[in-house]
Amino acid sequence: MSIFFNNVTIIGVGLIGGSLARVLKSKNLAGEITGAGRSRETLDLALKLGVVDKINQESGGAVQNADLVVVASPVGAFLKIVQEISSHLKEGAIVTDVGSVKGDLVKKIEKLIPRGVHFVPGHPIAGKEKHGVAEASAQLFVDTKCILTPTEKTNRQSLEAVKSLWLTAGATVVMMDADAHDHIFAAVSHLPHAAAYAMVNTVAEFTAGEENYINFSGAGFRDFTRIAASSPEMWRDICLLNGKNILEMIEQYQFALARIKKAIKHGNGEKLEQLFSSASNRRRGLG
Amino acid sequence: MSIFFNNVTIIGVGLIGGSLARVLKSKNLAGEITGAGRSRETLDLALKLGVVDKINQESGGAVQNADLVVVASPVGAFLKIVQEISSHLKEGAIVTDVGSVKGDLVKKIEKLIPRGVHFVPGHPIAGKEKHGVAEASAQLFVDTKCILTPTEKTNRQSLEAVKSLWLTAGATVVMMDADAHDHIFAAVSHLPHAAAYAMVNTVAEFTAGEENYINFSGAGFRDFTRIAASSPEMWRDICLLNGKNILEMIEQYQFALARIKKAIKHGNGEKLEQLFSSASNRRRGLG
Repeated sequence: MSIFFNNVTIIGVGLIGGSLARVLKSKNLAGEITGAGRSRETLDLALKLGVVDKINQESGGAVQNADLVVVASPVGAFLKIVQEISSHLKEGAIVTDVGSVKGDLVKKIEKLIPRGVHFVPGHPIAGKEKHGVAEASAQLFVDTKCILTPTEKTNRQSLEAVKSLWLTAGATVVMMDADAHDHIFAAVSHLPHAAAYAMVNTVAEFTAGEENYINFSGAGFRDFTRIAASSPEMWRDICLLNGKNILEMIEQYQFALARIKKAIKHGNGEKLEQLFSSASNRRRGLG
Repeated sequence: MSIFFNNVTIIGVGLIGGSLARVLKSKNLAGEITGAGRSRETLDLALKLGVVDKINQESGGAVQNADLVVVASPVGAFLKIVQEISSHLKEGAIVTDVGSVKGDLVKKIEKLIPRGVHFVPGHPIAGKEKHGVAEASAQLFVDTKCILTPTEKTNRQSLEAVKSLWLTAGATVVMMDADAHDHIFAAVSHLPHAAAYAMVNTVAEFTAGEENYINFSGAGFRDFTRIAASSPEMWRDICLLNGKNILEMIEQYQFALARIKKAIKHGNGEKLEQLFSSASNRRRGLG
């Protein structure tokens, strides 16, 4: 499928939105790209770097000519943004997003999208160690997965167009149910973030003399807690939007910790080795 | 303080033992270095790479001329090794170790060390992502911390010699009580390992169709769980040797998780942001 969008608007020109803009440009998939968002500084930088062709702080005005609108802001701002833009969207426009929560949020967005505009929910699983438009790269999505979670309302042609966009970006596209998505990402992404925040808080409660325990940490701790440097506001919103699944996963995790605790308490080396080996083998398989 | 050891024996020539051997050579701190350990393959490689000058699979024989013995095997093997070598150690020899558990283990080792031999307990906090003698480097300890945990029995001159060795390796030497050490490292190292193993086990319990959830994980999960690829046998031993402290830390961690769970359950965004922000600020401070 060959795709081309005369006018594209990216709302939220950070790492993900900016990288998608770079894909659109490098693969000649777009005529003109407009960057929108709240931060004037970010938009100015996006323009200066050539990531976008135009900028517009007013989301409503920014989308009125758009054939494709990509909502790439923090997920907690999605509903507000869709409310702002919905009356400005033109007939036949495709709206897609890159949010890491789907489920109920998709249902709410669908209710706000006017007739004749096509919403395609998406979630690219791309590296997040770096942030901001300065790090944006057309290569970001190469060899990654992008999840699309169409509903019975999703326009099939628009779904194919968005799928084609992500395939062109180098991603493998996986289609799944929005609720299945939220259960999976509660486990592989939202739980680890909550767990990393909890870990830093646990260790930082202790001091030896003047020195916080955290100052004795090595490379392993730094790897483990890297994701705890992520935006607290973003993860607050994700926890609120996907609360039910995240609560289930934290409980499962507490059970797994309790199994290790029990084995330590009983001095059960065989059980410990078994619990650690199964994890170790799984983890080594990930590379 | 200028130090020189005519004969050094390293028992366990892996990343840490091998790197210390490279420091001894590059800084001209040793006459001849003997590598000892159970794996013939590792010893052959250490010899071939020039990390050691001689090899000897018999620990007893390997130490009989040594002025400095470095025990760098997995910590679970320490007592057995010290039992094997103790009657072969020469008068005035210094024995040191690089184990990540001190406390009771140090007391037990001290009882096995004969009169006239000087034991100096140590723990270099060096990167562990890479393994094996092939990765050994004289630079490994530069800008790291090395903890020494002398007791009232520790010979002061030998302590100074070992301190001088680690300073020459580029490390900052921190002296602390062995029990304090075990409490700190239960928090910053042992707990994160147990938590990473528990995380992989939690996520790997779920599948979507044929696909294990873990296959949907991204860079964040891989960072978080990298330490879960560590040796299950080594971590079993550490959990058994430092069980009391690790149990305390797992419990503290469970409290921190419970606080996040409660805030999610009550939809308390303010509390979540507060918990995440404190962690995020601490973590960003680590770099």
